[in-house]
Parts: sequence; C-alpha cells; structure tokens
Amino acid sequence: MYTLYYSPGSASMLVHLALLEIGAPHVLEHVDLDAGQQRSAAYLALNPKGVVPTLIVDGVPHGEAAALAMLLAERHPDTALAPSPGSAQRADYLQWMLYLANSLQPRFRAWFYPGDHLPSAADHIKEAARIGIEACWTRINTHLATHGPYLLGDNFGVVDLYALMLMRWSRNMPRPATSWPHLAEFATRLKARPSWKQLCDSEGLTEWA
Amino acid sequence: MYTLYYSPGSASMLVHLALLEIGAPHVLEHVDLDAGQQRSAAYLALNPKGVVPTLIVDGVPHGEAAALAMLLAERHPDTALAPSPGSAQRADYLQWMLYLANSLQPRFRAWFYPGDHLPSAADHIKEAARIGIEACWTRINTHLATHGPYLLGDNFGVVDLYALMLMRWSRNMPRPATSWPHLAEFATRLKARPSWKQLCDSEGLTEWA
Repeated sequence: MYTLYYSPGSASMLVHLALLEIGAPHVLEHVDLDAGQQRSAAYLALNPKGVVPTLIVDGVPHGEAAALAMLLAERHPDTALAPSPGSAQRADYLQWMLYLANSLQPRFRAWFYPGDHLPSAADHIKEAARIGIEACWTRINTHLATHGPYLLGDNFGVVDLYALMLMRWSRNMPRPATSWPHLAEFATRLKARPSWKQLCDSEGLTEWA
Repeated sequence: MYTLYYSPGSASMLVHLALLEIGAPHVLEHVDLDAGQQRSAAYLALNPKGVVPTLIVDGVPHGEAAALAMLLAERHPDTALAPSPGSAQRADYLQWMLYLANSLQPRFRAWFYPGDHLPSAADHIKEAARIGIEACWTRINTHLATHGPYLLGDNFGVVDLYALMLMRWSRNMPRPATSWPHLAEFATRLKARPSWKQLCDSEGLTEWA
C-alpha cells in the first residue's frame, strides 16, 4: 500500500499515473498548494523541499517525481514499465528519463515560476524557457518519427508517462507540444489508455483531459 | 571495454570518475569543444545533441552523464557504487540522483551558457542561476550535517561523484560550494580518493585539483 501526497495536474501526476498503470493499491492525500499546505510543518516533515509529490513507501516518505516513477517500475517488474537492469534497452531508458528530468522539466519550472529567484528578470527567464522547451519538443518529435511509437520504440513505460505529463503542462503555451505532429499522435495514443481517464477522474482534471 | 568521449572538466567527468572507481578498462577519446568537434558529422552520429559525454557500451553510443553513471553502477554491482534495486536505500539514491539532475545541473548550464536561448537576457539568467545554485548548496550542506559523511550516509557511490563534479564547477563562482563547511569537508573526503588523482592526471586538470 502506497500513500501519495498530490496536487491535481502537478508533478505528482507522473507518480499517480505509474500507480494506476501498475494497479497498485494506494491512498491519495490532497495537498492544497493554493492554501499553502506544502509549507505546513506536518508536510515539511515529509518533504523538506515543500513540494509535491511525496510517496510513502514502506512507511518512509520519498520525493522527486521521476525518481519515484523509476522506483515504482523497479518494485513492480512484472508490469514491465521500465527495461530491467541489464537489459538491452536499459541505457536508453535511463538516458530518456534523465533527459526529461534535466532538459525539459526544469524549463517548465522556469516557465511557470519565472520570478522565483529574481523577480525583475521574470519576463526574460520565461522567454528563454519557452525557447528551450520548444527545442526539446522538436528533438523528441524527430525521435518519435523514426523510433516510435513510444520513446523506447514498441515498449510503453514510465518514460512515456513522464513525457505525457510534460506535454500537458505545455497546453497553454504559445506552441503546445501537440503542435508537433508526432507528439500529437503520441499524446493521443497515451491518453487512450485507461490510466489517463482514471487519473483525470480522480484528480478532477477537465482541461486537456 | 568502454569508450568514453570526453572533454576535460566537463560533464563527462562524472562518467570518467565512475569508470575509474569501478576499475573498468576504457579508452578515452578527447572531443575538442573549442575546435567544435562536438558538431562534426562523425560526433553527431554518436551523440545527436552534440554534447559530451558519449559512452560506447557494447558497441552502442549512449549519452546523459547521470544516466551513464547509473548504468555503470548497475553493470558492475560488485563495486557497490549504487544501492541495488529493491534495497532499502534505493529510493534515496534515485531521489538524490534526480535532484542533482533536475535542480542543480540545469542551473550550471544557465550559469555557464546564460545567453544560449536569449542573449539579451544573459545577465538576468546568470544571476537567477547563481541564486538557485546557492539554495541547492545550502540544502545539501544541511543534509550532510546530519546524514553524512556521504549523501547516502556511510555508503559512498556515484551520487557523491555527481556532487563532486558539480562542486568543482562552482569553484569560480562568487560563493563556491566549498564555502559551506559540510560541503568543504565532503569535497576534501572525495578528493582524497585515488580516482580523483587519476582523473586529474588523465584529463590534465590543474585547477581545483
């Protein structure tokens, strides 16, 4: 049994989707970010950064969405949501997870919270983030054109769920990810999975659902 | 036998350190970034992003420094450079690797190449990166104070090598990582390992060596 501290549509979505794909029993705890619950003493004791997600695993709280998705895939190898250590696709899997974590996700943080560190520079930081995000979409679109239908070819897994979350985050940007044709097909394919409908129902998501 | 395409002091250092710690036979191929070799057709065929490192594993090229370090740790489990899947520390390991990949390393890219996407905003982007990097050092310093001597407590591994590389990158910043006392001790401890001297000799590093 897992407990996931989440906020609808946030980075916790990746972990929530992984739990749904695995079919793992889990309890959801809503963290009201607008009310500042992530900065409560109780929540900071679970997650010192004060962000979602937190996943309680065997009674111990852990953070970092991508790390948690990788952990869940490892703990449930029968669901084949990640190539197993030692398998031929393992390097590609790690490479794509780290690419999304390193190149794409941080630019969304800059896009959504551009004034976090230097409010006077928010406009510039946001614009640079947009350009960087679009460069990433172009790269992933090119990859899918010849190596799809999933990021690891024929094998669906957590790396696709990660990309799906990030594509959703782009929905109100000047060029949403679905402006790229192979990304649009990819998103449609992933959103046809039962886990997506379950997620949207559970988190109450209506936009880009 | 591995082949590592590297540039001295760059992100390839993490992979090089992991190879040295493992004691894995490897060939080094220098990529002259100043001469633009990373944009040659031959190199782009190995690494479509045109960055170092590239590691040839079983004849296949792979990228992303942190992913490669994780891969090497998995391929050489006897060296115990990462908690094995299913072990109690696995979640903490993944969490720290992803934290460094997601929160710290991208801000160094912004610090070193602030004008990449929007040259007019370079000064602002650089300053925001500095503030973000310092916040990360504060967090890691606090963690080491009570959970050290390594990031995973008593167990040294690739996550420490990753932090060491990033600490070195801060050496000419207004507040280098070693301005924080627990980070300074941590760096000294890691630089006392034979792998560090081997790395500096092999890559010809003299600064912060």
